[in-house]
Amino acid sequence: MVQPCPAKVGDTLDEVVTPALIVELEAYERNLKAMAGIVAEAGLRLRPHAKTHKSPEIALEQMARGAVGACCQKVSEAEILASGGVGDILIANQVVGAVKAVRAATLARQIRLAVCVDHPRNVEELSSAAAALEATLDVLVEIDVGNGRCGVPPGGSAVALARRVAAAPGLRFRGLQAYHGTAQHIRDFEARRAAVRRSAELTLSTVEALDAAGLACETVTGGGTGTLLHDVEAGVLSELQAGSYVFMDADYGRNLAKDGGPEARFENALFVLATVMSHPVPERAVLDAGLKALGLDSGPPKLKGVPGASYERASDEHGTLVLERDGLLAHGQRVLLIPGHCDPTVNLYDWYVGVRRGRVEKVWPVAARGALA
Amino acid sequence: MVQPCPAKVGDTLDEVVTPALIVELEAYERNLKAMAGIVAEAGLRLRPHAKTHKSPEIALEQMARGAVGACCQKVSEAEILASGGVGDILIANQVVGAVKAVRAATLARQIRLAVCVDHPRNVEELSSAAAALEATLDVLVEIDVGNGRCGVPPGGSAVALARRVAAAPGLRFRGLQAYHGTAQHIRDFEARRAAVRRSAELTLSTVEALDAAGLACETVTGGGTGTLLHDVEAGVLSELQAGSYVFMDADYGRNLAKDGGPEARFENALFVLATVMSHPVPERAVLDAGLKALGLDSGPPKLKGVPGASYERASDEHGTLVLERDGLLAHGQRVLLIPGHCDPTVNLYDWYVGVRRGRVEKVWPVAARGALA
Repeated sequence: MVQPCPAKVGDTLDEVVTPALIVELEAYERNLKAMAGIVAEAGLRLRPHAKTHKSPEIALEQMARGAVGACCQKVSEAEILASGGVGDILIANQVVGAVKAVRAATLARQIRLAVCVDHPRNVEELSSAAAALEATLDVLVEIDVGNGRCGVPPGGSAVALARRVAAAPGLRFRGLQAYHGTAQHIRDFEARRAAVRRSAELTLSTVEALDAAGLACETVTGGGTGTLLHDVEAGVLSELQAGSYVFMDADYGRNLAKDGGPEARFENALFVLATVMSHPVPERAVLDAGLKALGLDSGPPKLKGVPGASYERASDEHGTLVLERDGLLAHGQRVLLIPGHCDPTVNLYDWYVGVRRGRVEKVWPVAARGALA
Repeated sequence: MVQPCPAKVGDTLDEVVTPALIVELEAYERNLKAMAGIVAEAGLRLRPHAKTHKSPEIALEQMARGAVGACCQKVSEAEILASGGVGDILIANQVVGAVKAVRAATLARQIRLAVCVDHPRNVEELSSAAAALEATLDVLVEIDVGNGRCGVPPGGSAVALARRVAAAPGLRFRGLQAYHGTAQHIRDFEARRAAVRRSAELTLSTVEALDAAGLACETVTGGGTGTLLHDVEAGVLSELQAGSYVFMDADYGRNLAKDGGPEARFENALFVLATVMSHPVPERAVLDAGLKALGLDSGPPKLKGVPGASYERASDEHGTLVLERDGLLAHGQRVLLIPGHCDPTVNLYDWYVGVRRGRVEKVWPVAARGALA
């Protein structure tokens, strides 16, 4: 079920078997460096989200440049990151059910691990597992600061749940998660800024209520690549979770380029290499990369360096391009696509192909590909 | 990179680790049987598309019930099907590039293999590879009968390309592929029927033109689950490629149920088992199955047996449900989702969990998961 690696070190792009997931290493390294500079200047801690890349190798490169650890979404991802050498992980999500609670507690005996909660039943499950295994699991209470997904309401509900955590054997109350996912993609700069400000106010008032109850927040985590500038400005978070900055994607490109803020310092570093597998009429070409090769939830990919060609329609294994004029592409030609959304695109591949100046420099696994549990 | 199996034989659904890909074996077996009856009655050959299931085990069960072989979309899928015992495969797609042509020719020495072409350059690549390896590769000319994707125009262009195939060393002209993918999802019965009729006319006139040129079509392949009734009625195809019938999905459900034709005989047999991981307010619950656990290109999944709950929004790892009233679902509860589109959903999982009357009866791999090449 693991696919063979589509490239070997030294290959040119024309020798890579398509479709393939390409990391332009120079852009990727510039992204790492740029983010390290931004958080150092802001005096914040960075805990990049590994749900973007699903790779312990990349997490360790982020930590080598100052990140304090990694985030992920699933206990199965945390297990894979830990087995790859990442020693400080936040599962920025709820780990629900007795079996997964035991997996989290087991991992908490090996590394520093934190999870989020938003329900008393989940606090009990985690506490039972941690106590039985004599583990200490750090716990953050997730509050809903406008995202409308997980999280208890800010204020009193959060304090009540934090009290349960603090009293539960095997658990240690560590602070708050206040993540506003939908704000990442608000196109308008001022509207995005306003959403983050409102989130920050709700977060700050909850931190203060917890303080008044004797429950100090060691960590207040949230933020993302789309709101980075505003997260820094708002000043409530102690740890940033931004993850997409390592690769960027077409969707973030659509709302960030005009900001002039730190987000504009990141470049597209992730591409899907595809082949023109059909070119039946002058105005249409078909790529060998469709629904199973690209995350399309945030819109279609953009073609790199082929003005006049647009990716119009995806089916399972085909991407249909509309060409403004004949001669833009030839049958068999390779093209690089900038995915609409990097995270679900990465999850479709087993291998990263790292390229520098047109040559494959290294290949490495998408180790947590398919880690859904 | 292969994830651990989420279940063991004998587990109840409550013991399966979520999210997990569930096959309701009784419904699946009824689907196999129903299709065998339909094609037998129509006097057609069935070559089910394995891009739906990506499993040699399922392909062999289809063949045990009369299917003549399997279709797939990629040479990497064909390799995996062949290594699992499938001896007669049509890659219902173009296999482009010298490296993949060699892989196809290599496989053609081991099993009966056919591929489609729609470009002279591709004919040359395949011929070179087959001739060099002393293989015989069967080739079908793909014609565009209204799909607007791959395929040469019907008529003279197809005859010209077929002549090249017939003259090319290592290749054997076998017939036509005439697949109308977009017709599968036309909601209106009569509009869908009309699209298939038009396709059939174009196909028939091309078959006649080929006959007149001395190029007999041994095989005319196409069709799908969505157009099954009309494909049978039109009577031009010698082989049906329908694949989704084994599992069905929410999208096919939206246009088939009212037809009263053979398609209405198929049932939903594929589900994603998910857990309510958050239930922060009465009107909202959140499942642990989002973009990375479900193919969402054809709309959201439907919940099985929970009227009043709808899957409204997916993020990477979350599915947000809107609940009409409180008390519909409890924190930690399991639910079965009918995926919007079965093919890309299957491609996200490493394992099938086969369930009969609420117990896991068998587990088997999604062997060609991620086979993009």
